[in-house]
Amino acid sequence: MNFCSQCGHKVSLRIPAGDNRERHVCDHCGSIHYQNPRIVAGCLPVHGHQVLLCKRAIEPRYGLWTLPAGFMENGESTEEAALRETLEEARAEVVLRKLYTVSSILHVNQVQMIYLADLPEAHFGSSEETLETRLFSEDEIPWDELAFPTIRNALRFFFADRAETSPSFPLRHLALSPGHEELLLES
Amino acid sequence: MNFCSQCGHKVSLRIPAGDNRERHVCDHCGSIHYQNPRIVAGCLPVHGHQVLLCKRAIEPRYGLWTLPAGFMENGESTEEAALRETLEEARAEVVLRKLYTVSSILHVNQVQMIYLADLPEAHFGSSEETLETRLFSEDEIPWDELAFPTIRNALRFFFADRAETSPSFPLRHLALSPGHEELLLES
Ligand SMILES: [Zn+2]
Ligand SMILES: [Zn+2]
Repeated sequence: MNFCSQCGHKVSLRIPAGDNRERHVCDHCGSIHYQNPRIVAGCLPVHGHQVLLCKRAIEPRYGLWTLPAGFMENGESTEEAALRETLEEARAEVVLRKLYTVSSILHVNQVQMIYLADLPEAHFGSSEETLETRLFSEDEIPWDELAFPTIRNALRFFFADRAETSPSFPLRHLALSPGHEELLLES
Repeated sequence: MNFCSQCGHKVSLRIPAGDNRERHVCDHCGSIHYQNPRIVAGCLPVHGHQVLLCKRAIEPRYGLWTLPAGFMENGESTEEAALRETLEEARAEVVLRKLYTVSSILHVNQVQMIYLADLPEAHFGSSEETLETRLFSEDEIPWDELAFPTIRNALRFFFADRAETSPSFPLRHLALSPGHEELLLES
């Protein structure tokens, strides 16, 4: 950030009065421009014994497999964001079951929220963001071709939790930082 | 937003190619300025049969009671944000028990995440943001002087869940919009 989005003057990076962190401050109009983490919402769609993955048609991680997920927009709930992204990226209509993973990804300032979801009909497709969408059983998961550690974690949790005698799919809570992207903070 | 924070030129509000929502776009440098919901993280601190509330020393809702919570910062996890806000606002050191409420507050573009937390020692205090901090038993809660519907919901859930024979404090998931700020979407 170089310029004030309110008045167009140059901003400077300093600690405002009463604060304890550096912010982009405009000395012309007094605006303080806070920067905060963004939410990525998505789904882990389950159809019978299979899960639905999308092959990315966009960077980063073009060509790798992921769960349908994307940035939450203003004016929607986390659930609505998860449903919208699943429809947009995988052309799939799912029913949310529960919030399943919450991952703070420190180095990119994102909080990823993945819902466990049921895909009642095996209807899905590709999109501008997705080269291909398909169902995978556990032994077909392309573990070496997954786009993000958060996706790998979510899938690992899912198959481990599903193997329980009475699966309850407890909320999985993670904090990920560079070099510690796998199961750093499990609760 | 009136000006591009990258180059300082005027931005216009329009739908970029490949998008389906209006964004602030800079025709000079090509930047697209997305705006997304912010996360508010906080705690519901429990000490014995009492809970800890803070009387706000800041607007909005000056003088009303709330749970310690505030905007999550870049570079921290949701847990770290909840702990930091509790320390800053209530001068209290808590131990997080579990993520308890997740509320999408549609009209202010916020997602509030409240952790159930244990306050081992009855040590707490006021701060720049807090006129007074004190413990309340259930029959002392100032229901008519609470700052936000999300706080009222969290406290209602807590006392209802605590009254169960084997309290499990399940995750409470809400979406709130104007006029529908109480328990709109419960799961
Ligand atoms: Zn300015
Ligand atoms: Zn620009």
